[in-house]
Amino acid sequence: MVRLAIDMMGSDLGPTGLIPGVKALLKDYDDVELHLFGDENILKESFTEENVIIHGTEEIVPMEVGALKVLRMKNSSMMKAVQCTVDEDLDGVVSAGSTGGFLTLTTLIVKNVEGVLRAGLCAPFLTVKKGKYVAILDIGASNENTAEELACFAKLGKIYSSTMWNIENPSVYLLNNGAEEGKGPDYVKGAYKLLKEDSSINFQGNVEARYVMDGKRDVVVSAGFPGNIYLKASEGMASNMNMLIKNAFSENIFSKIGYLLARRGFKHMKEIMNYKKVGGAIALGLNKVAVKAHGNSDGYAFEHALIMAYKMCKNHMVDAIKKEFHE
Amino acid sequence: MVRLAIDMMGSDLGPTGLIPGVKALLKDYDDVELHLFGDENILKESFTEENVIIHGTEEIVPMEVGALKVLRMKNSSMMKAVQCTVDEDLDGVVSAGSTGGFLTLTTLIVKNVEGVLRAGLCAPFLTVKKGKYVAILDIGASNENTAEELACFAKLGKIYSSTMWNIENPSVYLLNNGAEEGKGPDYVKGAYKLLKEDSSINFQGNVEARYVMDGKRDVVVSAGFPGNIYLKASEGMASNMNMLIKNAFSENIFSKIGYLLARRGFKHMKEIMNYKKVGGAIALGLNKVAVKAHGNSDGYAFEHALIMAYKMCKNHMVDAIKKEFHE
Repeated sequence: MVRLAIDMMGSDLGPTGLIPGVKALLKDYDDVELHLFGDENILKESFTEENVIIHGTEEIVPMEVGALKVLRMKNSSMMKAVQCTVDEDLDGVVSAGSTGGFLTLTTLIVKNVEGVLRAGLCAPFLTVKKGKYVAILDIGASNENTAEELACFAKLGKIYSSTMWNIENPSVYLLNNGAEEGKGPDYVKGAYKLLKEDSSINFQGNVEARYVMDGKRDVVVSAGFPGNIYLKASEGMASNMNMLIKNAFSENIFSKIGYLLARRGFKHMKEIMNYKKVGGAIALGLNKVAVKAHGNSDGYAFEHALIMAYKMCKNHMVDAIKKEFHE
Repeated sequence: MVRLAIDMMGSDLGPTGLIPGVKALLKDYDDVELHLFGDENILKESFTEENVIIHGTEEIVPMEVGALKVLRMKNSSMMKAVQCTVDEDLDGVVSAGSTGGFLTLTTLIVKNVEGVLRAGLCAPFLTVKKGKYVAILDIGASNENTAEELACFAKLGKIYSSTMWNIENPSVYLLNNGAEEGKGPDYVKGAYKLLKEDSSINFQGNVEARYVMDGKRDVVVSAGFPGNIYLKASEGMASNMNMLIKNAFSENIFSKIGYLLARRGFKHMKEIMNYKKVGGAIALGLNKVAVKAHGNSDGYAFEHALIMAYKMCKNHMVDAIKKEFHE
C-alpha cells in the first residue's frame, strides 16, 4: 500500500485541473491511499472512492511566497498536506504549488535523512535518446553549495537513478565549464576530488552543459544556482524554437500543407520533448518522498507526478537513501 | 583606418577556412590594414593586397591549451598576433583559436583598461525578435566573481551595446534564479544593490534564464560560471532540436515532401538562429579590441567576427570604456 498526501490547490489551473490526474492514478493503481487537501466541496463532489480521504482546507499558498509567509499559513492545503505526511506516517507528499514554499515546508517538517548534508531538487530530464532520462540535481533548492554538498547530491542522484530506472551502476557527472579535470570554480574542483575518491560512485568526470541531454549520462550533479540556470536556459531555448517552428509552418499556404504532410514526424518530436510526461521535480534526501509537480500542471502532467511519487514509494527509495547515508 | 592583427591558424578548419572571410572583409572595407599571422606559404599565395602584411609563424596553439603552455609558445600565430597588437599599436586582434589561450594572452599582454576590475567575455546572442541582439557577459572568462566584478561587467556591457547597436540607454539585467529582488547567491544580491544605486546604468532588475532571449533586454550580466552554463545549455538545446527537426522531416516520403513545401519558413527560422552571423565573443575591458571567433569558424563566420572587430574599432569602443572607467 502506498499512502500519499496531495495538495490539490497548488496548480495555476486550480483543483479541477488536477482532479483528472488523481482519477487516472486511482484507475491504474488500487494499492493506494490518497489524502487530498483543498476545497472540501469540490473534492467531495469529485471523489467518493473508499481509499480517498478528503481534508478540507481554506488557505492557498500563492506561487511567489516567502519562507516566513508560508510557515505562517498554518491552514494552507500545502502545509496541511506536508504535516499530515509526518503525523500519519504516510509515504510521500505531492504539490503543484510554489517550489520555494514546498521546499521550505518539507525541509522543516519532513526533515533531511540523517547524514544528508543538504537535500537537492532533482529533475529527471528527457534526452535525445527516446525513453532515456538523465537526473539533474540540484536545480535550485540551494543558492550556494560546498564541494561536500555536491558529493551528497551525487549519492542522492545515484539512488534516484537506480531506484526509478533500475540502472545498476549509474554514471555520475559534474556539470562544469569544461570536460577536463581541473576546470571550474573551487567548490566544483573539490567535488571532483571527493567523487573521484569515492569508490561507491561510478564517477565519469565533468560534462559541459551542451552534452547533458545526449543520452549518455544517468546523473548530472550541479550546485543549485547554475543548475537552475541550466534548467531554465534549456526550457527557454526549447520554447523559443517551438515558437519558431510554429511560425515556420504558418508562413504561407504551402508551409501549412507541408505541416500536414510532416506532422507524423513532428508528433514523434513532440513526444520526445514532452516535459509533462516527466511530471515534476523531486526534493531528494528527505525522510519522505516529496514531489513538486509543474506549477502549470494539467491532469496529464499531474498524473505523471503522482506516478513518480508512487514508484519512489513502491521501490522504497527513502529506505535506500537511509541505508546509503547511515553506512 | 582600422588596423587589425589576425591569427589565421586557430580555426578547426585551418587557415584555408578563414581566408575567404578575410577576403570578404577586404572587399567590403578599404580603410583597413590587416596583419595576418600563420603559415607563410599559404598566406602569401592567397594575399597580394597592399594593405595586407603577412607575418610567417610556425607554432599553432592547440584548442585545449593550458595557461602556462600558451605562454611558453612564444612563436605561435596567436602569441605573435596579440604581441603585435601592442608593439605596433594596432586597434584590435582576432583569433578563432583556443578561448582559454586567447584570454590568457590578451589579459597578460594587452592588459585591462585602468579601473576595470575584471575583463569579461561577452557574447552577442540572437533573440526571437528578428535583428535584435542581447549582449551576455561574462560567459566564461572567470570561474568565480564578486559583486563588484558583476557591476563592472554591467558597465562594459552597456558600452558594448551602445557602441555596436547604437542603443542610447541600454537596459541591463542580472541573470538570476528568480525575477524578484532578494533572489540568488550573495554575490548576485550584492551586484543588485550596486547596480540599483548606480544612476549611470539603466538597471532593470533580475532576469530568469528562460527569458534572456525574448528580445526585451539589451545587456544581461552573469558571473562567468553560470554564464558559461547558460550559453552551452542554450546551444545544446538548439542543436538537439535541430537534429529532431531534421529527423522529423526525414521520417517518411510525406514528411520529405512536407519539407519541400515548408522550407521557406524554415529558412527564416535558420536565419534567426544563425549563430555564425554573430561571429564570436569579445574580451571586453582590455586596452584593445579582442574578438574570439568561433573555433569551428568557416569563412562566413570569420567574416562576421572581423566585421565585429572592425565596427568596435571604428566606433572607438575602447576609448568609451576608458572614459567610463577613468571618470
